[in-house]
Amino acid sequence: DISCLPIISFLREKKRNRHGIRKVIHSIKVGVALVLVSLLYILDPLYEHFGENAMWAIFTVVVIFEFFAGATLSKGLNRGIGTVLGGGLGCLAASFAQAVGGVGKAIVVAIAVFIFGTAATYTRQVPNIKKKYEYGALIFILTFNLVVVSGLRAEQVLELARQRLSAIVMGFAICTFISLLVFPIWASDELHDSLVSRFEDLACFLEGFSKEYFVNVKEKEKKFCGNFSSNCKLVLQSKTKDESLVNFARWEPWHGKFGFSYPWGKYLKIGEDLRDLATTILSLRGRLRSPTQASETLQQSVIEPYEAIMASLAWTLKELGESIGKMIQCRSEETIVPKLNSVRLELSLILTPSTFGTNLENIDRLGLASF
Amino acid sequence: DISCLPIISFLREKKRNRHGIRKVIHSIKVGVALVLVSLLYILDPLYEHFGENAMWAIFTVVVIFEFFAGATLSKGLNRGIGTVLGGGLGCLAASFAQAVGGVGKAIVVAIAVFIFGTAATYTRQVPNIKKKYEYGALIFILTFNLVVVSGLRAEQVLELARQRLSAIVMGFAICTFISLLVFPIWASDELHDSLVSRFEDLACFLEGFSKEYFVNVKEKEKKFCGNFSSNCKLVLQSKTKDESLVNFARWEPWHGKFGFSYPWGKYLKIGEDLRDLATTILSLRGRLRSPTQASETLQQSVIEPYEAIMASLAWTLKELGESIGKMIQCRSEETIVPKLNSVRLELSLILTPSTFGTNLENIDRLGLASF
Repeated sequence: DISCLPIISFLREKKRNRHGIRKVIHSIKVGVALVLVSLLYILDPLYEHFGENAMWAIFTVVVIFEFFAGATLSKGLNRGIGTVLGGGLGCLAASFAQAVGGVGKAIVVAIAVFIFGTAATYTRQVPNIKKKYEYGALIFILTFNLVVVSGLRAEQVLELARQRLSAIVMGFAICTFISLLVFPIWASDELHDSLVSRFEDLACFLEGFSKEYFVNVKEKEKKFCGNFSSNCKLVLQSKTKDESLVNFARWEPWHGKFGFSYPWGKYLKIGEDLRDLATTILSLRGRLRSPTQASETLQQSVIEPYEAIMASLAWTLKELGESIGKMIQCRSEETIVPKLNSVRLELSLILTPSTFGTNLENIDRLGLASF
Repeated sequence: DISCLPIISFLREKKRNRHGIRKVIHSIKVGVALVLVSLLYILDPLYEHFGENAMWAIFTVVVIFEFFAGATLSKGLNRGIGTVLGGGLGCLAASFAQAVGGVGKAIVVAIAVFIFGTAATYTRQVPNIKKKYEYGALIFILTFNLVVVSGLRAEQVLELARQRLSAIVMGFAICTFISLLVFPIWASDELHDSLVSRFEDLACFLEGFSKEYFVNVKEKEKKFCGNFSSNCKLVLQSKTKDESLVNFARWEPWHGKFGFSYPWGKYLKIGEDLRDLATTILSLRGRLRSPTQASETLQQSVIEPYEAIMASLAWTLKELGESIGKMIQCRSEETIVPKLNSVRLELSLILTPSTFGTNLENIDRLGLASF
């Protein structure tokens, strides 16, 4: 009798605690970064150098310091590129306006603001750019606008741009330093762990659900249903989260077990397969719970092989999840493939293999994807 | 012979065009707002009033002008609340630091920055606050920090805060005006339309899929598969989008067909039901496509009632979608309920009603939810 309910709830509890602690660590890191960047104002020599532009460093820290190290890096680089591009084009537009002079100056500025604002806002909405560079485009619009209108009043636009840029670089340096070197929270780890835990969720769902179903048949009792199926539904909704984590993970430097050019794209693919599998499992459950089916086709004689098959599938999922989790070669040839073949055989003996057919194909694909 | 393939592709094309046009309109609106707010710099009398703080108005416009009117309003109000709270507490902390004086002043400022920065960052990560007020918390941190460190150098913190606040209010007013009154793009409309089109997607999937399947049986041809099933998968992934749209729609004032306190929560509920239904339909498809099942149980005699049932279900979905779309009372008692009952009867005659059982329950619930 295999039951993973206490284990999984213990793991969940631990995971929740760990997540809570990470939130506290992140908050403290932000606090420290804010104090460090405030020193630009507080300490006289630094203030003499940066002046009011120290504000831009504070602004940078508040806006780009994100939970995951990769997210901070990606936002910081976006901000850097946006600032440089926006500032450069803004300076050009401002000097052009200055060359025109008189009333024309204001008109040139207004036209430049309109054209660049509209074009950059449109670009921001293009799906591919939106995914990765939306923040950069926002900063481009902001910087361009500020520089071009400041050019109307301030005499030394270039000097102003240089000072602001150095303040922003200062803020970025503080963020990167604290985010990457002090208790870093990696998006890569999160992605890796969440994928592995989804294998476990599905395996436990299969186990808990065979228990639920057969207990239901035997004793008309339901215990495991709600909790497990909500985990299964969470698997279905993991796409957006996966995509953003992969986006961040790509920016993260070599660390821990993840080297350079680690194949993050494969995590997306395995995630997709797991979602397909969850769809199948959820619907299978819906099917088995329908009362007519139970009384008609599932006689006592079917229950035992059925339970064995469920256990095999759950075991396979766990095995795959574990090998991905520990990043070791899965013992597929020796153990998993023969097991799946025997399951397939057993199924063809007792039932029309329709639903399980899909199931098995998926698991085969999962097996291949994990090497 | 019912086919909605050309109709739906035409509608999709039209929808894509309309979406493209809306993007252009949004971009132009942002451009106009930026020009208007730049006038604070360009026109001398306005510049004399606002001075360098006009920058804050530009900043506000760039950051809060979002695609949907509701999103702009929600971000603007968040920004307002964050600024007022952060500014107020910042002023208090700054005057306290000034009262301490000397070296203690800098220490008080640093401690205040650390405590409020950490606490606000932690609050920002609490799920419920993250969903609705994350941006407000960000602005709170930013404003608090800027005000409290400015207090070290500037003499009139209150005057500074007042000027910045009035610049921000100016930016907010410009955004709200343009976003709500000039070709407004409502999140409510988007939510309503996307829900209705999901009913259509599922209905067409059922039709196209019965066609695909039976054509497959008869002539071994696959036509409709890929496209329809990807629409069905999009339905599965609609949760995040729905939630954010509901969040925005709640902020939108009375307009068009949507009055005050319109029941947006019900859209979430119907969306959830549609996702359940899509899960069932997708798995049903997987089951029917499995070759053993087809050759064994689905003899020619079953095909006709099967097609009739699919058509009934698709019709029901369309009817429900249409009544929600046009916001009219659905003719449920007269038409839908008898039809569903006859489908149920027919099913119990020809097959074990397992899979369809789930299906029907969902549709019943959908029927109830739409009144």
